[in-house]
Amino acid sequence: MRLSKNFTRTTKQAPADEVARNAQLLIRAGFVFKTMAGVYSYTPLGLRVLENIKQIVREEMNAIGSQELIMSTLQRKELWQETGRWSDELVDVWFKSTLQDGTDVGFGWTHEEPIVELLRSYLKSYKDLPISVYQFQNKLRNELRAKSGIMRGREFIMKDMYSVHAAKEDLDAYYDQVIEAYKRCYDRFGIGDDTYVTFASGGAFTKFSHEFQTICEAGEDYIYLHRGKNIAVNEEVLDDAVKELGIKRNELEKVKTAEVGNIFNFGTQKSEEMNLVFTGSDGVQHYAYMGSYGIGITRVMGVIVEKFADEKGLIWPENIAPARVYLVQIGEKSRAAADELYETLGAQGVEVLYDERDERPGVKFADAELMGIPLRVTVSDRLLDGKKWEVAMRASGERQLLTTDELLATLK
Amino acid sequence: MRLSKNFTRTTKQAPADEVARNAQLLIRAGFVFKTMAGVYSYTPLGLRVLENIKQIVREEMNAIGSQELIMSTLQRKELWQETGRWSDELVDVWFKSTLQDGTDVGFGWTHEEPIVELLRSYLKSYKDLPISVYQFQNKLRNELRAKSGIMRGREFIMKDMYSVHAAKEDLDAYYDQVIEAYKRCYDRFGIGDDTYVTFASGGAFTKFSHEFQTICEAGEDYIYLHRGKNIAVNEEVLDDAVKELGIKRNELEKVKTAEVGNIFNFGTQKSEEMNLVFTGSDGVQHYAYMGSYGIGITRVMGVIVEKFADEKGLIWPENIAPARVYLVQIGEKSRAAADELYETLGAQGVEVLYDERDERPGVKFADAELMGIPLRVTVSDRLLDGKKWEVAMRASGERQLLTTDELLATLK
Repeated sequence: MRLSKNFTRTTKQAPADEVARNAQLLIRAGFVFKTMAGVYSYTPLGLRVLENIKQIVREEMNAIGSQELIMSTLQRKELWQETGRWSDELVDVWFKSTLQDGTDVGFGWTHEEPIVELLRSYLKSYKDLPISVYQFQNKLRNELRAKSGIMRGREFIMKDMYSVHAAKEDLDAYYDQVIEAYKRCYDRFGIGDDTYVTFASGGAFTKFSHEFQTICEAGEDYIYLHRGKNIAVNEEVLDDAVKELGIKRNELEKVKTAEVGNIFNFGTQKSEEMNLVFTGSDGVQHYAYMGSYGIGITRVMGVIVEKFADEKGLIWPENIAPARVYLVQIGEKSRAAADELYETLGAQGVEVLYDERDERPGVKFADAELMGIPLRVTVSDRLLDGKKWEVAMRASGERQLLTTDELLATLK
Repeated sequence: MRLSKNFTRTTKQAPADEVARNAQLLIRAGFVFKTMAGVYSYTPLGLRVLENIKQIVREEMNAIGSQELIMSTLQRKELWQETGRWSDELVDVWFKSTLQDGTDVGFGWTHEEPIVELLRSYLKSYKDLPISVYQFQNKLRNELRAKSGIMRGREFIMKDMYSVHAAKEDLDAYYDQVIEAYKRCYDRFGIGDDTYVTFASGGAFTKFSHEFQTICEAGEDYIYLHRGKNIAVNEEVLDDAVKELGIKRNELEKVKTAEVGNIFNFGTQKSEEMNLVFTGSDGVQHYAYMGSYGIGITRVMGVIVEKFADEKGLIWPENIAPARVYLVQIGEKSRAAADELYETLGAQGVEVLYDERDERPGVKFADAELMGIPLRVTVSDRLLDGKKWEVAMRASGERQLLTTDELLATLK
């Protein structure tokens, strides 16, 4: 994209009412626009990051046999009454409204009940199992406070996945597959090394559930980390975990983290509550085993901002950056060479933000850094004769002079 | 996709409370699931159709320089009070709720006001113009009645686009470009020949706006069509149009249609209401010119169902079908040949629904027809020796025997 065609603009200052660093930077860089506290719109630049994150998740969920669908936002009261979760005492984040005939409706804050309703209308036999489905859903939650920017909004995008199985062992095996698929997602996002599968409190059927926690100063959680054994435990289950996992309390390091995913083994609890049954090979009806698996897409974007940004602005890992190259053109004579490089990179499938604006070099360099594009390539009058362009890495600050061919080789 | 992995099932009967034929068929074929009146979830099969429609629209909007973004669902009261459209008297489809601190919020039923708020925060100079942005948004509308299936839901997906220009002539020229882009969309959906650019009532700035109306018995509208001059007029503006467009009332044919898109030239009306201004080349502040352009994505899907379906079920045009081939395997000996054809087609990038289920041939043929996949290919024991497969076109019923190579050539 030519930056002269980008309608957002960078600013030196964030809105006075925005306290979260991730939202401050994303707003300053023109990636998100604040609608109200905890509610953000995503501009073309921000949407590209979200779509890159979604595409990685989509590929990994498809690879473990899950199928994408999309549920409705509007929710029927009677359905949620089946599990008692229509209650505002039990669930304190409902947005509710009424149809014109007075019928109560809710707005989806999670989709376990709707997915069970959908699946029970189709499920008949053990031969239909396993089933795994997921969606990218715009969840609405009436959070009391909204001070974490896009890390905890009143409206946010969640990948929520649900799997149903005929036997406990099948669910357990799939649950382990999901753990591995999630690890691949965090690796591909660029936060794999700092993300830990963390023991958290379970439910009626399992002692533990699992969270994925990323070391992050802006996080809302703490985990207890055994670096030697690569075991992480959250605060709620610390005592139990120490007892059961063969680790000593004094070997654990307390670190601040942000939750970027969670997975939950329901056993047959949801199925019993909502009558999700199938006919087994024995001809008898059984309750299905169910797991639930979430990744907060917008939250991951926020955590990545918090983890990598520096005093100059955003720093995007390569796989999720809105472009791989920020091309700065300086001077008059070099315009044709810069145009040519822009075309050449585009033809090779390299996404480029091309800063051909009529702005001072200092403005362009500052915007390149604030927007956090992995590579900044400068084509200036001064570099024309040598035909080597200045290539700077946003994360390390490392610079080198490369010909077009050398640059293309780097980007392969 | 192997159909044994598809968790939805076809049924002979639709839910008793569903009166719209499009929803009845989509539910029976396992493409949508009804959450409540006017609210539907899309299963993996249904989602594929939606994504195909969206991708065509995305390509055509990008081709005229528009940029995709995504606005929030949650809406701030104060913003909509700027134009008076917070009022339930003026707008009778609002869903509203309150934050925990008592603040009123609305749920987006359209996004003109939010887009102006976003753009006015960035727009400074005539050099920033034109700007064109669009989104695929899950709109929520508290419709009094919901009897048209996915053609008019309480929750539906809309492509809404907004353009802003420095001068009236620029907006007018872009408006014409959008008309052409929309025509290309309807052509690619397979409804181009029956879709008419239709004069409809305008606003403060223009005598007419334009609707795109598709001839469809299940539609809610009527248009008056001059087939000779290829002019269509809706009922509201019939008298004016006859006066101004040089057509005679008695030359017009009244036909039933469904609206599949509309475009609107606001002139500077919205900008004046909401103070969307820019500094012109003359150094003076001016109100921006704005257009608004919608395509109902889920509605298009519904209209296509209504237009093409027959007594046996759905019929999808090729470009938006969830798969191009429905592969029926019959008998025992031909299983390997069918597996091989499935792999071969997949390797060529052809989407296939592979019916390898342990079902009677009659069940498979009936499902192929109900699901409406353009080509049905049968591999049976009987056809093994000749190595020619039966290829039936869903729309025409035409059948022929083709080798794998001949089939691949047909699919090119």
